[in-house]
Amino acid sequence: MEEKLLTPDEVNSLRKELPQWEVNQSLLRREWQFNNFIDAFGFITKVALLAEARNHHPDWSNIYAQVIIQLTTHDLGGLSHKDVELAKAINLLE
Amino acid sequence: MEEKLLTPDEVNSLRKELPQWEVNQSLLRREWQFNNFIDAFGFITKVALLAEARNHHPDWSNIYAQVIIQLTTHDLGGLSHKDVELAKAINLLE
Amino acid sequence: MEEKLLTPDEVNSLRKELPQWEVNQSLLRREWQFNNFIDAFGFITKVALLAEARNHHPDWSNIYAQVIIQLTTHDLGGLSHKDVELAKAINLLE
Amino acid sequence: MEEKLLTPDEVNSLRKELPQWEVNQSLLRREWQFNNFIDAFGFITKVALLAEARNHHPDWSNIYAQVIIQLTTHDLGGLSHKDVELAKAINLLE
Repeated sequence: MEEKLLTPDEVNSLRKELPQWEVNQSLLRREWQFNNFIDAFGFITKVALLAEARNHHPDWSNIYAQVIIQLTTHDLGGLSHKDVELAKAINLLE
Repeated sequence: MEEKLLTPDEVNSLRKELPQWEVNQSLLRREWQFNNFIDAFGFITKVALLAEARNHHPDWSNIYAQVIIQLTTHDLGGLSHKDVELAKAINLLE
Repeated sequence: MEEKLLTPDEVNSLRKELPQWEVNQSLLRREWQFNNFIDAFGFITKVALLAEARNHHPDWSNIYAQVIIQLTTHDLGGLSHKDVELAKAINLLE
Repeated sequence: MEEKLLTPDEVNSLRKELPQWEVNQSLLRREWQFNNFIDAFGFITKVALLAEARNHHPDWSNIYAQVIIQLTTHDLGGLSHKDVELAKAINLLE
């Protein structure tokens, strides 16, 4: 399947579908606060495995127990179904 | 603190203290079955961080969703307080 | 592609193709000795990512700086092309 | 040892001591470009182990093969010896 940008309507519907994520036209963003670094990094590692298996990788940052993940499809310069599917898979990790 | 082997009485009391672990004079053993490899490896990574921080490392193996951890103090040829403390820290991960 | 067992001739040819691995009819085995746990676990994590992306996972064990990996195709009870390809990908990690 | 901020002179001398790092009064910053996500995440995992063992953690981010690490001592609002030691340990990973 050729990947293409979500339409503005599809992006809008993500606000309902992915309430845990901040949605804008070009990216999905979510923030986690864990109890400590070990829990945060265990989570990051699980996300890394999901990402490599899909060959679609998050932009993420970490400070101690805080993790921020941003999803976008760099090749297209915005959101695609790959981002939605990775966000759903990340939601299921918890 | 110089590390020394647990006495046979101390080893016996571990059966109550660490009911999730198989106890014998020379090692502690526990087995986990996760839902999939990602959950197993997230757990493994958290144990790796605990272990490196204590400079006391498990003998372990993994097949897909199964993880087996054995703890012993190689320098002493048996169980020491380091093993008990690492076992307790691993129990708290869940 | 349906996966099937390698023939005895194909298994034999692996001894030349994968000289770093011990080959027998049912599995490939290789052992590494790293400088310390950190290097060993960095390597294990890279193997984990390779494995999850192929949905074909190694049996592995680790004691401090030593890592042992065994590859086999459990569903078939022996070696398949999946094992050969994972072994080659692991060789390229170094 | 109570941790304290490096003096401006000590910070200046870091430019020679840690030429791979961008130095300013409040943080050390270094960027890596790996071949792919697997190599990047193997490196990240090794840094995570170093950090947890020292109980001093980096601020970092990752996009595919790029890793950016920033070191600072949040409690003090600037650079301390902990940052210098972690930077040196990270340099030795390669």
